Amino acid sequence: MAKKKRSKVWAARFGKATDQQAEAFTASIDIDRRLGRYDVAGSIAHARMLAKQGIIPEEDGEAIVRGLEEIGEEIEAGRFELSRELEDIHMNIEASLREKIGPAADRLHTARSRNDQVATDLRLYLKDAIAGVLAVLRRLQGALLDVVEVNRRVIMPGYTHLQRAQPLLFAHHLLAYFEMFDRDVGRFQDCLRRVDVLPLGAGALAGVPYPIDREFVARELGFSRISENSLDAVSDRDCVVEFQAAAALTMMHVSRLAEELVLWSTAEFGFIQIDEAFAGGSSIMPQKRNPDVAELARAKTGRVYGNLMSMLTVLKGLPLAYCLDLQEDKSGLFDSADTLLTALEVMAAMVPGIRVNAERTQAAASESYSLATDVADYLVRQGLPFREAHGVVGQLVRYADERDRGLSELSLEEYRRFSPLFDEDVLKLDVRAAIEARDVPGGTSSRQVAAALKRARKRLEGGKR
Amino acid sequence: MAKKKRSKVWAARFGKATDQQAEAFTASIDIDRRLGRYDVAGSIAHARMLAKQGIIPEEDGEAIVRGLEEIGEEIEAGRFELSRELEDIHMNIEASLREKIGPAADRLHTARSRNDQVATDLRLYLKDAIAGVLAVLRRLQGALLDVVEVNRRVIMPGYTHLQRAQPLLFAHHLLAYFEMFDRDVGRFQDCLRRVDVLPLGAGALAGVPYPIDREFVARELGFSRISENSLDAVSDRDCVVEFQAAAALTMMHVSRLAEELVLWSTAEFGFIQIDEAFAGGSSIMPQKRNPDVAELARAKTGRVYGNLMSMLTVLKGLPLAYCLDLQEDKSGLFDSADTLLTALEVMAAMVPGIRVNAERTQAAASESYSLATDVADYLVRQGLPFREAHGVVGQLVRYADERDRGLSELSLEEYRRFSPLFDEDVLKLDVRAAIEARDVPGGTSSRQVAAALKRARKRLEGGKR
Amino acid sequence: MAKKKRSKVWAARFGKATDQQAEAFTASIDIDRRLGRYDVAGSIAHARMLAKQGIIPEEDGEAIVRGLEEIGEEIEAGRFELSRELEDIHMNIEASLREKIGPAADRLHTARSRNDQVATDLRLYLKDAIAGVLAVLRRLQGALLDVVEVNRRVIMPGYTHLQRAQPLLFAHHLLAYFEMFDRDVGRFQDCLRRVDVLPLGAGALAGVPYPIDREFVARELGFSRISENSLDAVSDRDCVVEFQAAAALTMMHVSRLAEELVLWSTAEFGFIQIDEAFAGGSSIMPQKRNPDVAELARAKTGRVYGNLMSMLTVLKGLPLAYCLDLQEDKSGLFDSADTLLTALEVMAAMVPGIRVNAERTQAAASESYSLATDVADYLVRQGLPFREAHGVVGQLVRYADERDRGLSELSLEEYRRFSPLFDEDVLKLDVRAAIEARDVPGGTSSRQVAAALKRARKRLEGGKR
Amino acid sequence: MAKKKRSKVWAARFGKATDQQAEAFTASIDIDRRLGRYDVAGSIAHARMLAKQGIIPEEDGEAIVRGLEEIGEEIEAGRFELSRELEDIHMNIEASLREKIGPAADRLHTARSRNDQVATDLRLYLKDAIAGVLAVLRRLQGALLDVVEVNRRVIMPGYTHLQRAQPLLFAHHLLAYFEMFDRDVGRFQDCLRRVDVLPLGAGALAGVPYPIDREFVARELGFSRISENSLDAVSDRDCVVEFQAAAALTMMHVSRLAEELVLWSTAEFGFIQIDEAFAGGSSIMPQKRNPDVAELARAKTGRVYGNLMSMLTVLKGLPLAYCLDLQEDKSGLFDSADTLLTALEVMAAMVPGIRVNAERTQAAASESYSLATDVADYLVRQGLPFREAHGVVGQLVRYADERDRGLSELSLEEYRRFSPLFDEDVLKLDVRAAIEARDVPGGTSSRQVAAALKRARKRLEGGKR
Repeated sequence: MAKKKRSKVWAARFGKATDQQAEAFTASIDIDRRLGRYDVAGSIAHARMLAKQGIIPEEDGEAIVRGLEEIGEEIEAGRFELSRELEDIHMNIEASLREKIGPAADRLHTARSRNDQVATDLRLYLKDAIAGVLAVLRRLQGALLDVVEVNRRVIMPGYTHLQRAQPLLFAHHLLAYFEMFDRDVGRFQDCLRRVDVLPLGAGALAGVPYPIDREFVARELGFSRISENSLDAVSDRDCVVEFQAAAALTMMHVSRLAEELVLWSTAEFGFIQIDEAFAGGSSIMPQKRNPDVAELARAKTGRVYGNLMSMLTVLKGLPLAYCLDLQEDKSGLFDSADTLLTALEVMAAMVPGIRVNAERTQAAASESYSLATDVADYLVRQGLPFREAHGVVGQLVRYADERDRGLSELSLEEYRRFSPLFDEDVLKLDVRAAIEARDVPGGTSSRQVAAALKRARKRLEGGKR
Repeated sequence: MAKKKRSKVWAARFGKATDQQAEAFTASIDIDRRLGRYDVAGSIAHARMLAKQGIIPEEDGEAIVRGLEEIGEEIEAGRFELSRELEDIHMNIEASLREKIGPAADRLHTARSRNDQVATDLRLYLKDAIAGVLAVLRRLQGALLDVVEVNRRVIMPGYTHLQRAQPLLFAHHLLAYFEMFDRDVGRFQDCLRRVDVLPLGAGALAGVPYPIDREFVARELGFSRISENSLDAVSDRDCVVEFQAAAALTMMHVSRLAEELVLWSTAEFGFIQIDEAFAGGSSIMPQKRNPDVAELARAKTGRVYGNLMSMLTVLKGLPLAYCLDLQEDKSGLFDSADTLLTALEVMAAMVPGIRVNAERTQAAASESYSLATDVADYLVRQGLPFREAHGVVGQLVRYADERDRGLSELSLEEYRRFSPLFDEDVLKLDVRAAIEARDVPGGTSSRQVAAALKRARKRLEGGKR
Repeated sequence: MAKKKRSKVWAARFGKATDQQAEAFTASIDIDRRLGRYDVAGSIAHARMLAKQGIIPEEDGEAIVRGLEEIGEEIEAGRFELSRELEDIHMNIEASLREKIGPAADRLHTARSRNDQVATDLRLYLKDAIAGVLAVLRRLQGALLDVVEVNRRVIMPGYTHLQRAQPLLFAHHLLAYFEMFDRDVGRFQDCLRRVDVLPLGAGALAGVPYPIDREFVARELGFSRISENSLDAVSDRDCVVEFQAAAALTMMHVSRLAEELVLWSTAEFGFIQIDEAFAGGSSIMPQKRNPDVAELARAKTGRVYGNLMSMLTVLKGLPLAYCLDLQEDKSGLFDSADTLLTALEVMAAMVPGIRVNAERTQAAASESYSLATDVADYLVRQGLPFREAHGVVGQLVRYADERDRGLSELSLEEYRRFSPLFDEDVLKLDVRAAIEARDVPGGTSSRQVAAALKRARKRLEGGKR
Repeated sequence: MAKKKRSKVWAARFGKATDQQAEAFTASIDIDRRLGRYDVAGSIAHARMLAKQGIIPEEDGEAIVRGLEEIGEEIEAGRFELSRELEDIHMNIEASLREKIGPAADRLHTARSRNDQVATDLRLYLKDAIAGVLAVLRRLQGALLDVVEVNRRVIMPGYTHLQRAQPLLFAHHLLAYFEMFDRDVGRFQDCLRRVDVLPLGAGALAGVPYPIDREFVARELGFSRISENSLDAVSDRDCVVEFQAAAALTMMHVSRLAEELVLWSTAEFGFIQIDEAFAGGSSIMPQKRNPDVAELARAKTGRVYGNLMSMLTVLKGLPLAYCLDLQEDKSGLFDSADTLLTALEVMAAMVPGIRVNAERTQAAASESYSLATDVADYLVRQGLPFREAHGVVGQLVRYADERDRGLSELSLEEYRRFSPLFDEDVLKLDVRAAIEARDVPGGTSSRQVAAALKRARKRLEGGKR
């Protein structure tokens, strides 16, 4: 069992150094280094408050703030050096502060604990991460609207069960994804509201015995509220789970869009071509042009689901207040946030370059009895109850299918074998008419789609949902 | 391969009956029977609208509504008989309607599809389920506040890492759970806002070619908005995932509370006694008195986590619009809603019966160097920087620990060996003083806890968060 | 708080009845009723052993066995009535036994506890469930081989990234699934080995103070070994997790096969037609013929994944020995076993009815530059290093693609523009030749596929992997 | 959209460079760099085979092997420089080889594809990872046996529901963990058997058109078998899931042990003291001595569960053969393997340093009516049926409990109030006798525990389970 000199803040209490394996196991510096900028910001606000309240001498407060600002600059510039022996980012910063300003640094940790400190850092990080996600979600929504705009007259088959169902405007199909991402925006905004609460001042778990001004710190750091209960403040990681859950839902949407891009760019569908800049080749098959980005975006759903499950597992059955288990909150969070951001960004970059093969999609929309529902609806307008009309057209389709013919290839006479209500005009049903007939709010008619596009643009601009 | 006569609505299209195994596999009637009341309500609103818009004859509309109301009564009374051959609840209801009112029933399915119909039923169910969850969450919060009230003077050790850390008011500890459940309330309310959107009118996927009035239907059914995009309306199950995620978070909170109840009622802690009415015995050990309810509530977290993961898995990579995969949305949802409701209810019933052993909790709070932080803070008030004070007290604790003595058992002289700043008054530090010293918003002082309790009551009464 | 008379075995110890809500919450009878037959079998073996060892009087032993056999018959015949007040299946059986044979029944629970009893029942169930899964896995493998046999000359495009890659025998593609299910067989067999251990005799947690003969009971019940440690025996649920994990992997394979069936039966691929007996229609679109069974099999992967996650969550951080949390082991296990069995069965029933459109698959295999790798390999045989050859053919494909021509539509002169190594015979490359050239073990040549089929049949017959 | 010069192997086929964001998104070099040594080994075996079979010139084969050996040394020495533009480790190695040996390097990729190459690398890695896990599992088991040995006479309370149940030997309790880890060993060994299959030779998906010798390559690389089906070989990731599932189960066991260590080292239990070298302090509370390592080991269960769920999600519904989704197999696998290894190692290092407070555990075992079952068994030996005896003792316990007395504090007369069968000797029941009475295989008597320890040692030494 290799031991080493104890450089811990609690060294005085123990007779023995930490086992090196244990130290490596419990060190969080490789992960929490990303909290550096937030830790500095939080400490500056804390120090200002301590001085303002007379808890530490004013000149010490000023020295601390000055030193921390320097450290903040070093961090931003990538010049801040980390020591693994100092275990975590907080101790690294405190140690550097002591080097810079001397013993005054020892007053910084007055009236706080690492427990409320790290909870504060985490929330500052989350606020930034959510802002980033919201921005790129909006960008992806905008990219979708641009593709909608360009292809607003393109007709494609609508699918249920991946079987052709009814003809659609391609624009209408893409607008469905606009809606999904819009709900994602809403969920992240709701999450942000619950993140926006300052835990600092909770101390280790019970509050602190100093006359601190928590509202001042909240204002300094841009938090809307302060936490209500100190135990909850240090042991709550709900916002991490909520972020993870919102990310999982968003990635699920990404995976659905990605799946469709993969399908549509197969030789068999041939509906779209993904720009070469987003395609991959093969080390052995010279002809390949693979939808790499879409596939990987789809796959990365897995890690975001997994991170959600990890965090839920960590928290299950954990007693109050802080337990070291909570240290496992960050790596999955960072991974999910990074994955989500890059997946959304690369989708937002890829989507505008999609070229739609409109001839092919329109041809596909006209095949496979896609107008069967419209024929049934025709009979309803002739007075037949829908359920009966559905039955008649079912037989009609079976008749045509057995002869390997389309509905438009049948004669009026053949139609009439199934119902006398059929008239000349049934032969005039076509894909375009079927689309325009669905002129209800939310429907695929070109009028409704144009209105939906307009509303969508407005929502994007207004930033509201 | 056993076959049987095809009783499906689409029978006319196929030459062959469905395989019995396939039919059993795809039938959803055992699950979706719970949607009966919602299906009836949705169909009534739809029929009224069809008649109002002149899409079906007024008298047919009236007959349909009358028939459905009868069916609704049968369902509520548990008299509605289900046939498995009719595959799902929707077809059962439609078939029963036809028996009651004849061919007019065949007009009900005009201008809608099972896809938008089932999406509507699901949202009506979810609105009810969320209302139920919110009510019982509030009840559990109220029960916690009652226990807080009764035990407001009880002192206990606060823990971090399950090691005694600083003394607390027991009331303060319980109030942390009030906060957790309050965030859960917020999440379910946010979820409800996104559930509260009517999908009916989306048809199979593209909208319908009839002059329907979606806003009318929304008003009839109590929805605040109508869906924006028909494809999204039929293939969106976000609200199921969001409910599952909110349920998972809530159950996580339940599991943490349950864990503490289990720990506190061990012989070793001996902090509380759970009422016998909520305890279990053993088939072999006559003395046992097990915290059965708490254990099982903790364990049931697992199934709610699992249901969340199930639904996320189902939706991953699913192309638009409706796929049969979506049929798997209900069983996990019902299971999570039921589990959550019963777990919250049984906790709300058990919590008021908890008896706290205040002598034991207070004694525990006084042991194990729980006042060490206060001694360090004492030195800070004497002018020592906190980091230094922390080091001094670390040595002091080690000194006492090696002699197996408490801090209060040391003499002033012994204190002074570690720092000359110690004075008589350090010997007066006690548990009560330590608690009252933490008099910052969110802290454990009796003043703060009383204020927090008052605010909590107000939030409960006002129904706002 | 509604209370009722306490009918529990431990009633004597408590002063109070169980709360009804708590009773409903902790009752397991709705779930564990399925263990009835195993509980009877376990109790019979236990009673025989008690009598043989002289722990209970011989005549009591005989009475108990007789009574239990009667109960066993009632259970098999569906005539055994359950009382919810008796909480679980074990107490129901014990109560019924007492009714049948009187006080002798009170001796049955000597030298055992519900903890080792339920662990035994669970393992008896698992042995049956695994046997069932193995049988239907073998049936599905057999069904796949039949389809392989019938279609052994059918050519199809092989895919990577869902882009056409190289031509294949359809039989070769299906044999990949044979291999997957074969590994599943292996995993369930391994799981069975670890299930096959008798826990009875562990008592509540510490063993029992009676001269029992555990090996005798193991032989009676068909277990190969007895458990090594009593605490482990009652708190181990590894085999449930292992079953769940094996089920998750198997369902993952089912989902991959299902996905391909869904894709292949789209209008766009048009590779196969699923028998109507396994297809579904639409309530609104009369033409639909949906791959319902495949979709639902794919979706049910979700619940099996979820059940795995549930059980892992339940067990995380659980102290020894038995905790009531373990009661949550069964519902997910039964659900996964049922889901897996029915999904495999319905796949095994559906697969033989698949009709392959061989013209279409062969035509697809000939398009999209599927032979590009073979052209590169041609150049390698002419002496060019592979990496260089790959580059040459990449340019060649790009040239053809820009002109919208296939490789077979280029002239030898055009080929030579890219490399002088091309000769007449490059024009003779075709799909069949490409397939036959891959004549390495595991490759797609007809010789290899025939050999693989033969080996597969042998493995199925021999029952070995 | 920033573009850059295309340095891909497939550059010739495309007219355009890859988008930089897309490139960053799809690059795997940060993850798959760890496969370097395996890639080199696989390529050396492949090159040797190509030369032996006359597929490439012998001198090229030799040059390739020489170059690769050099690269292998660079990798081991940490001197191998990676270029991110070369996308993955395979292309980095191939590029470096070309620099070293010139155009002969271009022949290495003959008769293979990245698909079978990466599948081979992954399996080589997994074999190493499993060997590592098995070794450290054995070490941890050994450490447990050492603690068992040292504390073999220590008595502690056995728990069910975390309530004291029956007295135990501490050694018996720890041996339960030996059994758990032993099953883990078995599962990893079974997994290894399925990993031990060579995929190389499968080519991109269909096999290769060269006379390769797969068995030779298998022997060179130490694989027992070659894969049966080329499509399966490149798209199978079962072994990753199986490893993840075995890791999840093992971590679950770690979490249970960790939970008990955390509980036992609370002030309330006070059963053990964890060595200071494995404990953590607090930044604010000078007295703290936290079970950091145990807590974090418990928490890390979450990430391993999550990684399992991630991989299952990735694979769900994935069509054959290789899709880029499979690239997501490695990061979670590496993370789980690393987490598992370090968690097991640190536990193996910590366990031997645990000091048991035997006085305290024995005292606890004597309290709380732990002998109640033995009193019931006493009555059974006096002829009472167990169920009746259980009832009598239940009343007895209730009587004592209401008077706040232990069973040993009751007089014989008091005993007799509940049953005339009680005699003098009932007063002689004690904890030691209760333990020794459980002298059945798997029971807690010192004879059984000694035998179990002996068998365990033998299993460890024999390396068999």
